[in-house]
Amino acid sequence: MRTETFKAVGGDCGPFELNRLKKTGTIMNNGVERLALMDIVIKNGTILTMDPENRVYEKGFLGVTGDTISHVGTDGSMPPHGKKVIDARGGLVLPGLVNGHTHAAMTLFRGLADDLPLMDWLNNYIFPVESRMDADFVYTGSLLACAEMIMSGTTSFCDMYLFEQEVARAAHEAGMRCIVGEVLYDFDSPNYGSVENGLKYTEELIRQWSEDPLVSVAVEPHSLFTCSPELLGACHDLARRYGVPLITHVAETRAEMEEIQSKYGKTPFAHLDSLGMLGPHLVADHCVHLDHQDMELIINQGVKVIHNPESNMKLASGVAPVPEMIARGITVGLGTDGCASNNNLDLFTEMDTAAKLHKVHNMDTTVMDAVTVFRMATIEGAKALGLDQYVGSLEVGKKADIIILDTCKPHLTPLFNPFSHIVYAARGNDVSHTLINGKIVMENRRVKTFSLPDIFQKVENQANRVRRWIGK
Amino acid sequence: MRTETFKAVGGDCGPFELNRLKKTGTIMNNGVERLALMDIVIKNGTILTMDPENRVYEKGFLGVTGDTISHVGTDGSMPPHGKKVIDARGGLVLPGLVNGHTHAAMTLFRGLADDLPLMDWLNNYIFPVESRMDADFVYTGSLLACAEMIMSGTTSFCDMYLFEQEVARAAHEAGMRCIVGEVLYDFDSPNYGSVENGLKYTEELIRQWSEDPLVSVAVEPHSLFTCSPELLGACHDLARRYGVPLITHVAETRAEMEEIQSKYGKTPFAHLDSLGMLGPHLVADHCVHLDHQDMELIINQGVKVIHNPESNMKLASGVAPVPEMIARGITVGLGTDGCASNNNLDLFTEMDTAAKLHKVHNMDTTVMDAVTVFRMATIEGAKALGLDQYVGSLEVGKKADIIILDTCKPHLTPLFNPFSHIVYAARGNDVSHTLINGKIVMENRRVKTFSLPDIFQKVENQANRVRRWIGK
Repeated sequence: MRTETFKAVGGDCGPFELNRLKKTGTIMNNGVERLALMDIVIKNGTILTMDPENRVYEKGFLGVTGDTISHVGTDGSMPPHGKKVIDARGGLVLPGLVNGHTHAAMTLFRGLADDLPLMDWLNNYIFPVESRMDADFVYTGSLLACAEMIMSGTTSFCDMYLFEQEVARAAHEAGMRCIVGEVLYDFDSPNYGSVENGLKYTEELIRQWSEDPLVSVAVEPHSLFTCSPELLGACHDLARRYGVPLITHVAETRAEMEEIQSKYGKTPFAHLDSLGMLGPHLVADHCVHLDHQDMELIINQGVKVIHNPESNMKLASGVAPVPEMIARGITVGLGTDGCASNNNLDLFTEMDTAAKLHKVHNMDTTVMDAVTVFRMATIEGAKALGLDQYVGSLEVGKKADIIILDTCKPHLTPLFNPFSHIVYAARGNDVSHTLINGKIVMENRRVKTFSLPDIFQKVENQANRVRRWIGK
Repeated sequence: MRTETFKAVGGDCGPFELNRLKKTGTIMNNGVERLALMDIVIKNGTILTMDPENRVYEKGFLGVTGDTISHVGTDGSMPPHGKKVIDARGGLVLPGLVNGHTHAAMTLFRGLADDLPLMDWLNNYIFPVESRMDADFVYTGSLLACAEMIMSGTTSFCDMYLFEQEVARAAHEAGMRCIVGEVLYDFDSPNYGSVENGLKYTEELIRQWSEDPLVSVAVEPHSLFTCSPELLGACHDLARRYGVPLITHVAETRAEMEEIQSKYGKTPFAHLDSLGMLGPHLVADHCVHLDHQDMELIINQGVKVIHNPESNMKLASGVAPVPEMIARGITVGLGTDGCASNNNLDLFTEMDTAAKLHKVHNMDTTVMDAVTVFRMATIEGAKALGLDQYVGSLEVGKKADIIILDTCKPHLTPLFNPFSHIVYAARGNDVSHTLINGKIVMENRRVKTFSLPDIFQKVENQANRVRRWIGK
């Protein structure tokens, strides 16, 4: 059996000490004992486990057997002992990032329309395209999104859109972990037609992907202002029947707050509560506008929250009270939202923005520290989506969703504190390797699960359709 | 004479149309006539000139002769006609970015301390290091900054720090355009000692670099709370005597506002006005806290402003009223500030943050549109620094400071509007080529003016000194 050694990173920027880590994590020095032959060994990097103690291993040694992490520790004097060895010298070995909320196929809207008033944006760009889109459009946009996410260190994503069977297919081909959910609302959909068919489509999706190791399915009503109480109730029932997450946009904009108040005389969370829909299975995207009672409901019912700072900024939705949510024990993950409102899927810059936005919003330099924010993009995001028993941290027994960040670059030098670089200095394209479920899907920035030129050609064909649809 | 052809970008992502550009710029279709042999020709890219009409040339043809842009237009059917030809197919050809405010050597503080209360940060990290630093420290940190800036598309920067002779030396070696200025304040400096020596040091710098094609010098008192009215007056006199810019931090934090109010009974701008220091030669960094009268003073006196959104966010300083400043005709450039408060020098993500921050702060999606923000990072920044007759746009007769952005990447696909991608989707490391003053300083992401491993080694030595100084 051949043992291959690959250099993970461009060069060696020299030894570094992690003294400051003693404040932010625990440096381990475990020996490596009696290793069985592993499928993949990642050695010499600094491993940030994001386990409950945020353990960090210098000159780390991480082993993968099959789809599972079989060893995490320091190298000691052990020789490499794997079918494939990745030398991560000068790199940070991290859990793959978890994108808690996106609309993957909206990559095909990237840069189509920005800086516009909401109704101009919706009526003249988004709606004309969405009313004409089809399965092929969503498949292509989702493939592009998978390429972008793999190349920027995201290994799991949670999607909401139309034609979600195509999102699942694209993710399956790309080798990405995901939760997909067909968007459901009161009006007819270009995919499934009537809402009754939408519920059937969702149920079929759940059944079809129930045994898949990477793709799982959620029930995803769009929002409280596009879904009647009856539809919301039916979604809730379906999610509970199959034990899958219930995911929806909640309290994103001021306009939504006013509409729900005017329709139901309540805040969105009070409305959900009156419908009996709150609980730990509910993932609430955005949560920008919360009053004291909403926050209490979220805490008491164990609702999970996904924060999308860049989208909330670009759409002028507002600033979610994330530091307070975290301080009060709410599980908050991080999402990019779709590319119409971001315009990329880079969770590294999303972390940077999250850390800085709340500092200036609260006029407090100490909120949203780097470790907290990196946890949001990894283990807390996994918890929010109910995936934390599988991913979100590098621990023995978890699935091998791993990325390597190459720090041998001017903007990641010197290295005093890796958490700081991850949040405040790195970008998605500093990721050199991405592994999902034990499979190397990107190696030295070459994606291995598909051909980029093929995707670009498909994307260009779809972009030309978009140009025709909007008549520009 | 040999003609070399280089491929600028990783691949061809196919043809794209720029229909939306008709709204944001003018598409030109000029023929190329009777070209003399040029030193460098950049062909096939989309040229965004950032000239007064924001002209865009598809399949552009840009010629460089010596240090100067000698042709800008479309290719037509002309064969390449240069000693060196860069094929920029699939790329955007842009003016090099202008970093309006930084402290280059603070790259050596990157990630040293974040998320701390201001006084803890200053007393336990920044001051212990700054009191011990020397010329070699500043030279090394500045070299690292130049490497980072060249690799992220910045071609000009404006610096304020200690040992500025070393910053000038580093920039000179790296081949970067810059304005340097020794920081001046009432207390002794580890570089020049007493403030009288500081003024002499500055005057000597001005004389020494007066004929340099790339390095120029400004007079840079630190701030109104660290400089007496007498020192500010002496700085003003020196700047006027030599006809160089006067640059200082103004109205950055609430604490500063209170201190100036308490000392002088005025806002910082009213204080500067009472000293007769306002005028078009004054570059005011930050300008976060402005009242109605301050804004009037800035407008009436033609003061230039540099906006540093990421630093203002990370240090919880506040949000500058930039949309109002721009609407009222004030020249506003963009800066990264130093790496202790950012933590990188990437003007692409700085643009992204600037565009989004003001949207959410003003609850208005239409402010800080992509073209406006890209102008801030190019021609408006050049105007602010008094460099606009030389750089900031791609026009015949200007100096050849040019970058190529490779858009053949998933996160920059499809391409409906290049301005959108530049501001909302690109990162610094998407830049493939950087030219400064007609010289190629980075080609296909390889820096040509110095060795990165050498810089990394120097940086590591200095980082070890920092670790000793702060006792961690």
